[in-house]
Amino acid sequence: MERSPNSEAFEDLLNVGIALSSIHDLQKLLGFILTEARRLTRADAGTLYLVKENKLVFKVSQCQSLTERLGDPIMERQYQSFEMPISPESIAGYVALTREVLNIPDVRRIPAGSPYRYNSSWDERTGYETRSMLVIPMRNKDGKIVGVLQLINALNKGEVVPFAGASEKVATSLASQAGVAIENAALTEDLQQAHLDTIFRLGVAAEYRDKETANHIKRMSHFSALIAESLKWPQDEVERLFWSSLMHDVGKLGIPDAILQKPGPLTPEERQVMELHSIIGGNILKGSDARVLKQARLVALTHHERYDGKGYPRRLKAKRIPIEGRITILADVFDALSSRRVYKEALPENEVLRIIEEGRGAFFDPEILTLFLDRLEEAREIQNRYGDRPEDFDKFRNLDRVAIEEE
Amino acid sequence: MERSPNSEAFEDLLNVGIALSSIHDLQKLLGFILTEARRLTRADAGTLYLVKENKLVFKVSQCQSLTERLGDPIMERQYQSFEMPISPESIAGYVALTREVLNIPDVRRIPAGSPYRYNSSWDERTGYETRSMLVIPMRNKDGKIVGVLQLINALNKGEVVPFAGASEKVATSLASQAGVAIENAALTEDLQQAHLDTIFRLGVAAEYRDKETANHIKRMSHFSALIAESLKWPQDEVERLFWSSLMHDVGKLGIPDAILQKPGPLTPEERQVMELHSIIGGNILKGSDARVLKQARLVALTHHERYDGKGYPRRLKAKRIPIEGRITILADVFDALSSRRVYKEALPENEVLRIIEEGRGAFFDPEILTLFLDRLEEAREIQNRYGDRPEDFDKFRNLDRVAIEEE
Repeated sequence: MERSPNSEAFEDLLNVGIALSSIHDLQKLLGFILTEARRLTRADAGTLYLVKENKLVFKVSQCQSLTERLGDPIMERQYQSFEMPISPESIAGYVALTREVLNIPDVRRIPAGSPYRYNSSWDERTGYETRSMLVIPMRNKDGKIVGVLQLINALNKGEVVPFAGASEKVATSLASQAGVAIENAALTEDLQQAHLDTIFRLGVAAEYRDKETANHIKRMSHFSALIAESLKWPQDEVERLFWSSLMHDVGKLGIPDAILQKPGPLTPEERQVMELHSIIGGNILKGSDARVLKQARLVALTHHERYDGKGYPRRLKAKRIPIEGRITILADVFDALSSRRVYKEALPENEVLRIIEEGRGAFFDPEILTLFLDRLEEAREIQNRYGDRPEDFDKFRNLDRVAIEEE
Repeated sequence: MERSPNSEAFEDLLNVGIALSSIHDLQKLLGFILTEARRLTRADAGTLYLVKENKLVFKVSQCQSLTERLGDPIMERQYQSFEMPISPESIAGYVALTREVLNIPDVRRIPAGSPYRYNSSWDERTGYETRSMLVIPMRNKDGKIVGVLQLINALNKGEVVPFAGASEKVATSLASQAGVAIENAALTEDLQQAHLDTIFRLGVAAEYRDKETANHIKRMSHFSALIAESLKWPQDEVERLFWSSLMHDVGKLGIPDAILQKPGPLTPEERQVMELHSIIGGNILKGSDARVLKQARLVALTHHERYDGKGYPRRLKAKRIPIEGRITILADVFDALSSRRVYKEALPENEVLRIIEEGRGAFFDPEILTLFLDRLEEAREIQNRYGDRPEDFDKFRNLDRVAIEEE
């Protein structure tokens, strides 16, 4: 039972540890942990649970022999996401509660006095025969249980055997690395989510002053990302442009109501003030080291530069306009024409396309326009998904209903 | 040379790997990596460099025997931050360029034809005698060099000896773990920084509409954090309140200019509209999963609730006002009274304190007020550090100077 793994096994573990520290996508990480744990212990099957608010949440499951028999698609249907309370009656719950490693030679022969019992519903549903089980708690660096790793049916020459003591040691070591990696990936996801959420607030804050809706901002950003994809940008840069485009009109926060909300057309002097919004946006966003904010500043500054050099604020021409500006002017104008505003109805699509086409080489980079028109089907999907409802135009509804408790 | 470390050494390495994955503070992490590398290879001294934009940046250095001789404070003065080009003439540069591990038995006997040479300026300055050296490249998961680990003077029974082959193996293994951990810590710091930066933009966006300055927002947030500290909140919660307080007036973005910028006193009807800013702020911030945004919403909603129940929007009373509200109303009013506004001069401090004291139990939670007054000295420092300059009141200066290149 207490035999230590040899130094090759440790070297293997070290490399697995390095590999799993470098996976930041939580779902991918969990799959990798389970695959490696099965490989190192020669387990046919396994399941990984995470602890979430006093529950065990089923996250990933793998079963080599069943997958070979049934194929991936059927297997996937067998795995429904489920949660269970952390109670000592289930095997995983017992391990999460007591932090004990359970090495069960045969689940059909669990001693009568044990607090936990084997739940055979999975076996009954799939015809699989669970025998040996190695169940290990995963801790974060403070010793808090973050999940449970459940390995099923150790194989030796095709036969199911109990898990060896060395496997117990190896899996425990892996679980220690995994616990920290899981916490790191979750931290990164939370941070990323909080950041993107804040960007979105900054984008929609302008909504309170403008005739546009939060959905305009979303559609415009999706159109920008669509174009970046067509330009074959790497996925992370496509996403960055999506987020930075959300802030394109943040400078409107600095434009007086009298101009921003004027019902009729603007005088030349008023128009000059209105055009300051791109520079004010650049000022609000300037001086950051964050790539998304640097790019947002560029978008704010250049999303009204015209391809023919008649745009503002710098009257840049053609390829001298940063690519971000050439993308976002098209995304912005396309959405402005094709959606309703407080002061105008949406134009029919053929009319929108006619006007956009007229702007080829005048407003828009011809190459970018061609790429965008090739993806009109996807643009329509974006319009449908983020369509404006009548009430979206009334920013001040329900202000008398205040709740301090989160909705 | 090629002897493998034994399984205890590997187990040790595994635990080091887990420990270093859980350090997210980059500077702390680098110190830990060097300490552990020295322990595992029995090195008297060592230095760690990171690669930054084609340069090697000196990050941390340790020397056991000199520290014992000279003491920490003298040692620290010996280490000035410096950068060097990545060129093959320096030992660390050579390793970064070629990705080779260098195990040099004696730096005084480097063969004549070697591209690199030993720079003895450190030895000359301190009287230290560098002999053996083990220099190892640190890679990220894509194989890119992120830094160089330089271990100096392997010790065996107090004597300086060349580094053993097993040490080479152990240090290389550690360096692999370290490379990924360094990249992870840098990623976390960047994400965190980008997020906080965005929060700050959201806070100051309101500046473009308001009579207040960005420095008001900073001072108010620092005062809030000061009070949270006095309440013995854990450091991370103090910091969270700092960031969430930055967004307290974001709802002013939704108030019409005619009211927000009215020079004289407001009519009762105008005041009612003005007071909507706390609810509008709550709306802009609602629905987020991020803790800082949840708290920011609470601050926005409650920073005008008075202790005697005569505040707005909900007329909450005493301890029914969330603690965040009781803290921020004091921070906000204190700064409003003690700083200049476009429409008023700053009051002298004794006058400010008199008015604040009058508000005890009316506006302010008496306990919180007492805590704050105990830290007046620190509050003054915050005022000095973030004082308003005359030009801070002119939001529209320099709007004609546009630069697309980052300043």
